[in-house]
Amino acid sequence: MNTLIVYAHPEPRSLNGSLKDLAVSTLEAAGHEVRVSDLYAMGWKAVADAADYGPHADSPLRVARDSGRAFEAGDLTPDVRAEQEKLLWADTVVFQFPLWWYTMPAILKGWVDRVFTHRFAYGVGEHSETRYGDRFGEGVLAGRRALLSVTIGGAQTHYSDRGVNGPIDDLLFPINHGILYYPGLEPLPPFVVHGADRLTADGYADVAKAWEQRLLTLDSTEPIPFRGQNSGDYEMPALRLRPGLEPAGRTGFGLHVRG
Amino acid sequence: MNTLIVYAHPEPRSLNGSLKDLAVSTLEAAGHEVRVSDLYAMGWKAVADAADYGPHADSPLRVARDSGRAFEAGDLTPDVRAEQEKLLWADTVVFQFPLWWYTMPAILKGWVDRVFTHRFAYGVGEHSETRYGDRFGEGVLAGRRALLSVTIGGAQTHYSDRGVNGPIDDLLFPINHGILYYPGLEPLPPFVVHGADRLTADGYADVAKAWEQRLLTLDSTEPIPFRGQNSGDYEMPALRLRPGLEPAGRTGFGLHVRG
Repeated sequence: MNTLIVYAHPEPRSLNGSLKDLAVSTLEAAGHEVRVSDLYAMGWKAVADAADYGPHADSPLRVARDSGRAFEAGDLTPDVRAEQEKLLWADTVVFQFPLWWYTMPAILKGWVDRVFTHRFAYGVGEHSETRYGDRFGEGVLAGRRALLSVTIGGAQTHYSDRGVNGPIDDLLFPINHGILYYPGLEPLPPFVVHGADRLTADGYADVAKAWEQRLLTLDSTEPIPFRGQNSGDYEMPALRLRPGLEPAGRTGFGLHVRG
Repeated sequence: MNTLIVYAHPEPRSLNGSLKDLAVSTLEAAGHEVRVSDLYAMGWKAVADAADYGPHADSPLRVARDSGRAFEAGDLTPDVRAEQEKLLWADTVVFQFPLWWYTMPAILKGWVDRVFTHRFAYGVGEHSETRYGDRFGEGVLAGRRALLSVTIGGAQTHYSDRGVNGPIDDLLFPINHGILYYPGLEPLPPFVVHGADRLTADGYADVAKAWEQRLLTLDSTEPIPFRGQNSGDYEMPALRLRPGLEPAGRTGFGLHVRG
């Protein structure tokens, strides 16, 4: 198995740094190939702008069109091309980051904004009245798995079904479904550590054991059963879920999970 | 009324640029003071790191603690201090941005990550078994309003209650509730433009008219009625919504909206 770890934390001696190191050693010891994109160490450029698209940056700039043209011509910047190549190499992509303001740190969002270009991650496949592109279950990255490994300062109850922050599965839906499933990745249930700022040595030992267990069962873990956009479950071209497919009482983001 | 517009788009001649310009001219013509943080034009540093906290960046770095110490000592970088000062000056904060991958562009997330420091936007007030800080309706920015003005490529139905992307109110909840309401801002219902990449001149005229209308009624628009954390609606310290407060069938993020 080839695993890419995309890691976003400014401090190597952090909980996130430890979990990233443990993922590398655990997977390598099990005979897997691992590559790491350590965004802070790489000095990753977080801001998408005209400089990303070389001669294809038109005036006025149009991000989707111009990024797609640069992608198709092989003219994206070397840092972005390298990340796209790593994604195509990987069978599994692990994202290791702290939840900052209920989502990923800016440097990781900037990795998405710059690497997930038009024609690579969106604007792929036939767009018509009966088919709205290869996305949500299809796309360039189909056949690969993804896993969010997230550290959170707050307690688990604050992120429970009735918790003040909202349910963690809903907070991560725009990432798991909107960013990862969109270009074809199959997201696994996330690995979440709560109370990250107050973790004791004993607490870390438990977390490490649970993380190793997840890493060693990546192959056999069932992905979140999101509905395929072109599976027949959605009206075309409105892309609304057909009536009656969901369990009674299911609403919101949960509609897009089967069963 | 003092309005701060935080604007994030790389192309001045974009729909987002036009909506930002229209906001400035409309509000100024109505006698209001307006300041603009044009993040791309400012070359905003999007990545939070040790350099942000000066002599308070400890080794190992701890983002919350070190940012709070730098804030309290007045040692945050001048760019961050300027944005905090603008927020305290403002009665209303408008965020103008395109929805990229179902959330804000990285440069704007980096504005949040760097400007919303510990002791300024979180870690404020008493934290005990009966009270979990001044947040979600209380905090340093209480008494101010916020408004997301968002452009979206996809159609409205794709973001409707049963739409494949999830309901737009749920996609924006982690921003409206998790980022804005947390330090005390009162978010208004968002202004959303769909089909942004296919907007005609006639279509833009309609959008501009609707946007002016929203801008001229900022004072009289009711905020989203999020529940106050310390209002009695939540169990302490679990921060779970007490049973029976929600309308029948309400689940997920919607639990945290009254009525």
